[in-house]
Amino acid sequence: MRTPLYLEDISVGQRFVTAQVVIAEAAITAFGRAFDPQPFHTDGAAAKHSFFGGLAASGWHTAAITMKLLVESGPKLAGGTIGAEVELRWPRPTRPGDILHVESEILAVTPSRSRPDRGFITLKSDTLNQKGEVVQTQTAKLLAWKRPL
Amino acid sequence: MRTPLYLEDISVGQRFVTAQVVIAEAAITAFGRAFDPQPFHTDGAAAKHSFFGGLAASGWHTAAITMKLLVESGPKLAGGTIGAEVELRWPRPTRPGDILHVESEILAVTPSRSRPDRGFITLKSDTLNQKGEVVQTQTAKLLAWKRPL
Repeated sequence: MRTPLYLEDISVGQRFVTAQVVIAEAAITAFGRAFDPQPFHTDGAAAKHSFFGGLAASGWHTAAITMKLLVESGPKLAGGTIGAEVELRWPRPTRPGDILHVESEILAVTPSRSRPDRGFITLKSDTLNQKGEVVQTQTAKLLAWKRPL
Repeated sequence: MRTPLYLEDISVGQRFVTAQVVIAEAAITAFGRAFDPQPFHTDGAAAKHSFFGGLAASGWHTAAITMKLLVESGPKLAGGTIGAEVELRWPRPTRPGDILHVESEILAVTPSRSRPDRGFITLKSDTLNQKGEVVQTQTAKLLAWKRPL
């Protein structure tokens, strides 16, 4: 059981590593059909002749999988993991059969100037495959609550 | 039928407006269970006592819906809509029953220095609800191919 973290529990340099998850081809094509219907995300044969040279997960699928890993086995923030803004890069695609996990680090802890009950943390999260290659980097500004008095 | 756009067809200031889509409560909770399993995304009763004050779509769901709208009725890029990096903000949540559409504008067109066959475009996309409120802003750097000789 992870203890919920309040703003006071979080400091720059803290690191978190999630569990792993296997990404099935059927999950890639189902997400593609639902949210990113382009041949390189939905059709392995057509994908061979695309920029990706084979079936690749939508970057939004990689982002969604990253969120699931963070919620289930990353830093557990009191009140939930709620993002205000995020920067994403996808240096290489997620492929069928990839095994992903997320490694995160706290880059900043910023109490709110206007709201004494809360603050923000900046969390950098790298999503890595089974070869240790980065498939996504993400820097997110997340809400964090101060411990109730 | 939208004509596929090459780098030469794209210029700063071009604007695009997508179709609309209705976001059902069942879609919000299904996405939440799959990718962002927190009570404010999966359970309307529990969500009432959360930061959001009621059921809210995961920001990643809003991002994925935005991608679907862009792919299906936004700018049609030759070779597909392939993002290298993106910045996202969620100023307010998507709610059950919301009707979303996306309004986009080209902010930059940058030929590649190293690869003569391609370039990048910077596309800013606002996702709006039926009240005209912005639920997501996104600035994406997308691949764009030059027209084959």
